[in-house]
Amino acid sequence: MAYVNPSGEFRRDQRYISTRITADGRDGYPVEPGRYRLIVSRACPWANRAIIVRRLLGLEDVLSMGVAGPTHDERSWTFDLDPDGRDPVLGIERLQQAFFARQPGYDKGITVPAIVDVPTGQVVTNDFAQITLDLSLEWTKYHREGAPRLYPEHLRDEIDRINDAVFTDVNNGVYRAGFAGTQGAYEQAYQRLFARLDALSDLLSTRRYLAGDTITEADVRLFTTLVRFDPVYHGHFKCNRRKLSEMPVLWAYARDLFQTPGFGDTIDFVHIKQHYYLVHTDINPTRIVPAGPDTSVWLTEHGREELGGRPFGDGTPPPPPKPGERVAAGHGAAA
Amino acid sequence: MAYVNPSGEFRRDQRYISTRITADGRDGYPVEPGRYRLIVSRACPWANRAIIVRRLLGLEDVLSMGVAGPTHDERSWTFDLDPDGRDPVLGIERLQQAFFARQPGYDKGITVPAIVDVPTGQVVTNDFAQITLDLSLEWTKYHREGAPRLYPEHLRDEIDRINDAVFTDVNNGVYRAGFAGTQGAYEQAYQRLFARLDALSDLLSTRRYLAGDTITEADVRLFTTLVRFDPVYHGHFKCNRRKLSEMPVLWAYARDLFQTPGFGDTIDFVHIKQHYYLVHTDINPTRIVPAGPDTSVWLTEHGREELGGRPFGDGTPPPPPKPGERVAAGHGAAA
Repeated sequence: MAYVNPSGEFRRDQRYISTRITADGRDGYPVEPGRYRLIVSRACPWANRAIIVRRLLGLEDVLSMGVAGPTHDERSWTFDLDPDGRDPVLGIERLQQAFFARQPGYDKGITVPAIVDVPTGQVVTNDFAQITLDLSLEWTKYHREGAPRLYPEHLRDEIDRINDAVFTDVNNGVYRAGFAGTQGAYEQAYQRLFARLDALSDLLSTRRYLAGDTITEADVRLFTTLVRFDPVYHGHFKCNRRKLSEMPVLWAYARDLFQTPGFGDTIDFVHIKQHYYLVHTDINPTRIVPAGPDTSVWLTEHGREELGGRPFGDGTPPPPPKPGERVAAGHGAAA
Repeated sequence: MAYVNPSGEFRRDQRYISTRITADGRDGYPVEPGRYRLIVSRACPWANRAIIVRRLLGLEDVLSMGVAGPTHDERSWTFDLDPDGRDPVLGIERLQQAFFARQPGYDKGITVPAIVDVPTGQVVTNDFAQITLDLSLEWTKYHREGAPRLYPEHLRDEIDRINDAVFTDVNNGVYRAGFAGTQGAYEQAYQRLFARLDALSDLLSTRRYLAGDTITEADVRLFTTLVRFDPVYHGHFKCNRRKLSEMPVLWAYARDLFQTPGFGDTIDFVHIKQHYYLVHTDINPTRIVPAGPDTSVWLTEHGREELGGRPFGDGTPPPPPKPGERVAAGHGAAA
């Protein structure tokens, strides 16, 4: 999935299965209620995007969700959270099986999020960046009433521009810092990360959300990294100029989103910490999982309402998660 | 120097050479100006105590100081900061040589602080807890005018009581968290550490210093751990319920001391970070040294003057460090 090149720089393997599920079914996979299953891990920031967007758009009843455990071995994410260790819909123990069903001997990363075609058991796509956009643009027929427009046409250029910078310097930037093979590569990633966070902080000091007064795809993508910042990236990946909680604008912005239905209710801090600290034995050989930080701070007042804004635009917030999809007790904020 | 027992708990090897240098010379080593050399590393919290106390008492001209580099190999601390890699007074490359001079084949920890008898080149003592007390009580004849009384008789019981709790739960507690061999041993150390910090915070919310309105040995001992908290213990040792900078009372207290002559001017944040992150390859195998945190925050206003107090009692602050003993440019706060 990833490697460190000779200069010590971490490079993400970005070869995904890029088949798309579309309204017109041009890749052979038309949007269809009940046909597909979204496989995620609550630990993973890339999967977290899809969990949030599915919630915001109200796609729970048409696109089911399977949740893999927080850790995985060299081969694959596993369904160890399910009673008999098998995903109840797909009947598999390892996500790898769905990749192999699609392509025997598949040798690229077995990653989440992945969308599986239930009848054939085959992965359709694990192209995380496209998945959320397609949920917004191709599944419109099945959006809930009041679903927000997360990728509206008139803001698309600006969202794309923000997303590019955020991906390189922040979403992937924390990994480049944490997996750097040399001091120089680490410091370069660190400088880029914090320079970008400073710029984002400036932007967000006068506007409530990244693209203006309404939540968009850009906020989803930044949020999933920010929410992991203090529990993981600050210590484990050495992104430690300051904690998120010490960057006032970004901290208020992140709490504002966290307290918005569809965001914080997807966050499992226990899974997040277990994943990074147990899986990356090359940077945490003891496999001790930190007891901190205190997560109750996520529920404190953020004051961002003063900036105005209409979080869901002409839409409405999603209802609470259904019982079967709630984060385990004690795993969320204030655990 | 240390090991992890079968229950996963870190135990510090507390067998030191406990010969004492006293006014009456009863162990064969009388207090004598120019005869001894204090060997330290600025990285080490135990040595840092002695550096501070020597400064506060003004013993620089009677007890010289040799500074070992921040890292050491399995055998010993080395004098790699000195131009030719040798301590200019003792003429040795490794502190181990002075231990061997005292006792051939010495097989316990080669630790700093150590005081060496210059004429024989032998270590007299590396018993860090006794060293600072003896500087206060046995070297009185050579204290500077205005030297504070760091271990006054009427406060001794209280200071001892505080020191015992601080040693177990804080000074050594951070190591017990960081070197824990099991999740359970780590969590126990973490809980004890933060419970103690909470109690100390309560105490310090109404009194300026630990034993009242004047700096004592107890403050020196707590300070050397607090100053390393955010740069090292928070991330490297997973002491991450909160940063020191997020604990308002302790953070103000630590800055108050930092900004007091004799404390902050002994702190080398570069050496501190290099030591822990480069030496402990069992918990940081990549040997990447974090670029953060920002140390300029140590110089911000602390507001503790409001609590009153007389930092040096009837005495006065020490003058600035002499040119040869200043922390390297860029290694202190605001680097």
